[in-house]
Amino acid sequence: MSVSRPRSGQIDQGPLRIIPLGGVGEIGKNMLAIEIGDDIVVVDAGLMFPDEEMLGIDFVIPDIGYLRSRKAKVRGFLITHAHEDHIGALPYVLRDFIDVPIYGTKLTLGLIRTKLREHKLADRATFHEIAPGGPFTIGPVRCDSYYVCHSIPDAIGVTVETPYGTIVHSGDWKFDHTPVDGRQTDFARLAAIAAKGVLLLMSDSTRAEVPGYTQSERHVAEMFDGIMSRAPGRVITTTFASNISRIRQIVDIAAAWGRKTAIVGRSMENYTKTARELGYLEYPEGSIVHPNEIGKLADHEICIITTGSQGEPTRTPIPGNEELVSRTVDNLFKLGAEVIYDPQSRPHVSGHASQEELKLLLNILRPQHFLPIHGEYRMLVRHARMAMDVGVPAEQTFVLTNGDVLEIDAKGARVGEKVQAGVVYVDGLGVGDVSQGVMRDRLSIGSDGIFLVVVTIEQKTGAVVAGPDIVTKGFVPEHDAGDIVEEAKHRVLAGLAEAQTGEHLAETAALKDAIHSSVASFLYERTKRRPMVLPVIMQV
Amino acid sequence: MSVSRPRSGQIDQGPLRIIPLGGVGEIGKNMLAIEIGDDIVVVDAGLMFPDEEMLGIDFVIPDIGYLRSRKAKVRGFLITHAHEDHIGALPYVLRDFIDVPIYGTKLTLGLIRTKLREHKLADRATFHEIAPGGPFTIGPVRCDSYYVCHSIPDAIGVTVETPYGTIVHSGDWKFDHTPVDGRQTDFARLAAIAAKGVLLLMSDSTRAEVPGYTQSERHVAEMFDGIMSRAPGRVITTTFASNISRIRQIVDIAAAWGRKTAIVGRSMENYTKTARELGYLEYPEGSIVHPNEIGKLADHEICIITTGSQGEPTRTPIPGNEELVSRTVDNLFKLGAEVIYDPQSRPHVSGHASQEELKLLLNILRPQHFLPIHGEYRMLVRHARMAMDVGVPAEQTFVLTNGDVLEIDAKGARVGEKVQAGVVYVDGLGVGDVSQGVMRDRLSIGSDGIFLVVVTIEQKTGAVVAGPDIVTKGFVPEHDAGDIVEEAKHRVLAGLAEAQTGEHLAETAALKDAIHSSVASFLYERTKRRPMVLPVIMQV
Repeated sequence: MSVSRPRSGQIDQGPLRIIPLGGVGEIGKNMLAIEIGDDIVVVDAGLMFPDEEMLGIDFVIPDIGYLRSRKAKVRGFLITHAHEDHIGALPYVLRDFIDVPIYGTKLTLGLIRTKLREHKLADRATFHEIAPGGPFTIGPVRCDSYYVCHSIPDAIGVTVETPYGTIVHSGDWKFDHTPVDGRQTDFARLAAIAAKGVLLLMSDSTRAEVPGYTQSERHVAEMFDGIMSRAPGRVITTTFASNISRIRQIVDIAAAWGRKTAIVGRSMENYTKTARELGYLEYPEGSIVHPNEIGKLADHEICIITTGSQGEPTRTPIPGNEELVSRTVDNLFKLGAEVIYDPQSRPHVSGHASQEELKLLLNILRPQHFLPIHGEYRMLVRHARMAMDVGVPAEQTFVLTNGDVLEIDAKGARVGEKVQAGVVYVDGLGVGDVSQGVMRDRLSIGSDGIFLVVVTIEQKTGAVVAGPDIVTKGFVPEHDAGDIVEEAKHRVLAGLAEAQTGEHLAETAALKDAIHSSVASFLYERTKRRPMVLPVIMQV
Repeated sequence: MSVSRPRSGQIDQGPLRIIPLGGVGEIGKNMLAIEIGDDIVVVDAGLMFPDEEMLGIDFVIPDIGYLRSRKAKVRGFLITHAHEDHIGALPYVLRDFIDVPIYGTKLTLGLIRTKLREHKLADRATFHEIAPGGPFTIGPVRCDSYYVCHSIPDAIGVTVETPYGTIVHSGDWKFDHTPVDGRQTDFARLAAIAAKGVLLLMSDSTRAEVPGYTQSERHVAEMFDGIMSRAPGRVITTTFASNISRIRQIVDIAAAWGRKTAIVGRSMENYTKTARELGYLEYPEGSIVHPNEIGKLADHEICIITTGSQGEPTRTPIPGNEELVSRTVDNLFKLGAEVIYDPQSRPHVSGHASQEELKLLLNILRPQHFLPIHGEYRMLVRHARMAMDVGVPAEQTFVLTNGDVLEIDAKGARVGEKVQAGVVYVDGLGVGDVSQGVMRDRLSIGSDGIFLVVVTIEQKTGAVVAGPDIVTKGFVPEHDAGDIVEEAKHRVLAGLAEAQTGEHLAETAALKDAIHSSVASFLYERTKRRPMVLPVIMQV
């Protein structure tokens, strides 16, 4: 097909560029740019939850510096599905790109609208609904999509036509032969795409470390059925707010066992409301009760579905949250609950493809080039090896990190010069104002506390007229600090006296240095801790 | 046997008391007290690594307030094996109990001596070596022990005779039918103990959630053999510094494949040195090289064994460290290393018993009462259920938390009044001086930073003669803070003016309050962050 083969006239526009832009540790997870000459299509715009050492940070979003520097080229945001790690950054990204349209399926756009409404952006954004399996264009760029199974309905993989051939971005996916909503990953479309030839496949590596096949979401139903059949009291279940298929199964099974279901939690209420309105979620008549009604029903007549407070994670538990989850399980046991939580017995299956499925997709599409995405580096390496095992040449298989550029033209594919990429911290109202410096300060003062020395000095004479006063937090308890504080005051006065012995009055900066060096090493010797020493000089 | 049956004359001394005293989340992990009338035997004195929210803390040790309050009763520290979580608190605990002897097997005492030497306590402590399987006394208390398999040699389970019967503390253990050192868990001794009748069994719950049997340490040899046979370059292995059996296997297999082994890392060098001196570790002639020699050998001739910097964990990875471990694996992949890390293929087996082994021990000993220890609450619940499944009556099975007291006398067993227990933070040279208050301050200033306001006031008039000066760290970058700082200064001056409008000069505390309330809510409104506001008033 001509579309998927290079034509000489188009080679002037330079190579096609693929750039994974966002994700903490994971590559291309939250955002990926496809740059074809003067046109950029951005796939996904999600957020991630902070690592444990990102103190005080609410979440992180992709650094879109590269897109800003090529603002006029950005033609659209193509969203594969409505999970937070694929849509959550839109409210922030749209601040710079409010005129750029958003492309997605019906449910995906419905959930994005709900989110943008909270940020008062829904009315200003432009939406283009796409039907899975139907072609569409983003600016001049011809695209298509295919339905995939994932832990949210209406998820798609996408294809983008380029002068050098068709590229495929898998989105998040698994092969589920018995999906709850009856919609399977679209093998016919995949075969049609393969028939035209695939220049490049980019595929989800989340479970590239897991052998075998991921179980069907339907498996969860069997497990819930067993649990509900045995439960003497209330059944409380937890899942991601967006897992509409899971919620539907729980409501159905609860109803079959004579239980009414209450959905508790703002994000889950929002998701289910939108999914119902758009026709993605149906309940048996009278199977749902308002949370206010819980108290009016006997324990064995109620089932509760709720989310945690951690938003919309991509995995359970979110890495770094294992300890929190364990503690919650412990506390529930202490309250006398029966908790079904371990991998063997809990009713849960992943929404991501395991190794055999990943190889199957590679074998169906037989791409010329392969770029594993959505995973930590070691997962990408595993996925790349699978691609080589099924026949993609090693020199056409690439493992990148965020900001790396994969360039493809008629001569082949190579890694180009790195561009600005990474993450931006969101803390309260601030986006990106928590710099690496602020983060380092937080880690430092959070680990060993602060030790503040304030001195008032007479400008004319250089004499200390008040202080040194010392305030310390997070270092040692204030009531225990007496000795250390007294000794530190003596050292500060001695240090200041020494600094002032010249003919001229010492500069403020020199006095601050004198204070710092007179106490910092003393504090370390005394306690083997390094609180941040903050000298303040007041002049009267 | 009379020893293990209550005698009327002894019942006056009150009930036997079992008190789990230490562990973060885990119960009785680091320390457990057995109190028989006027005598207390303390089993183990270990440390744990801090949770991620314990900012700046090096490690935590058991709160020994209860033991201090009964100092004269403490007869001995009975140590089951030389892992950090069982011996690591000794240097701190001995500060109060230097005259109380330490009981343990040869290797255990050898490694404790090495540790105490670093703290300059080895010469002052008293040691009593015990032979596994041979009776001994701690003060008037008659004890015995039996050899167990664990991931360090010379580990034991212990028995203590009480007026009401024999109690058994399992230590950390698994059944390994093909241990590397040929020493199996001592079934004959267990049978003999069972024959006399067991009043109470306390058993290791670390792997109470894992079905089946734990594999033999020998299994690791087969996996290493496969890895060494395929490795083209250097082989670098990592394990706990104390896993003498593992180290021995690696050296042997490396030698068989023509590789010399270098042992790298202070703690591993110390452990292996002590183990060799005491006869617990033998190498083939010429199989070990000094780390300095690594560069002189070809890559395929070398094997390196090293530890991480995280000390002596009980599991891999330590909960909370998963992310760190993942990142290290990612970085090694980026450097081009082949990393064998996933549960399916890495050469590792646990040192702890799984469910079928736990049930087997329960069935061999057939205890009257059962107390699961060494595990988080949910693991204890699982272990307790197994005990009930194999026949221990539910009312004789107890799940406790640290500080709970299990009382047993002729009338039976019950949970008594809680005593002081928990953990003490060790940070630098400080033991226990990091209070909950300091920890809260660290979390607070670490999350949103500090906002310091300094004002110099003339005592006589109450006039502001210098400042307000503002210093902020970890809040917003200093160069971005301009606006906020200027506005805050105005608010501080306005707040102070308002506070001074009365007839009398305002107190310092009132001025500080005025500063605080004038900026705290302003900062939150402006940024949705809550830095710790610290007002300082200097008077001249």
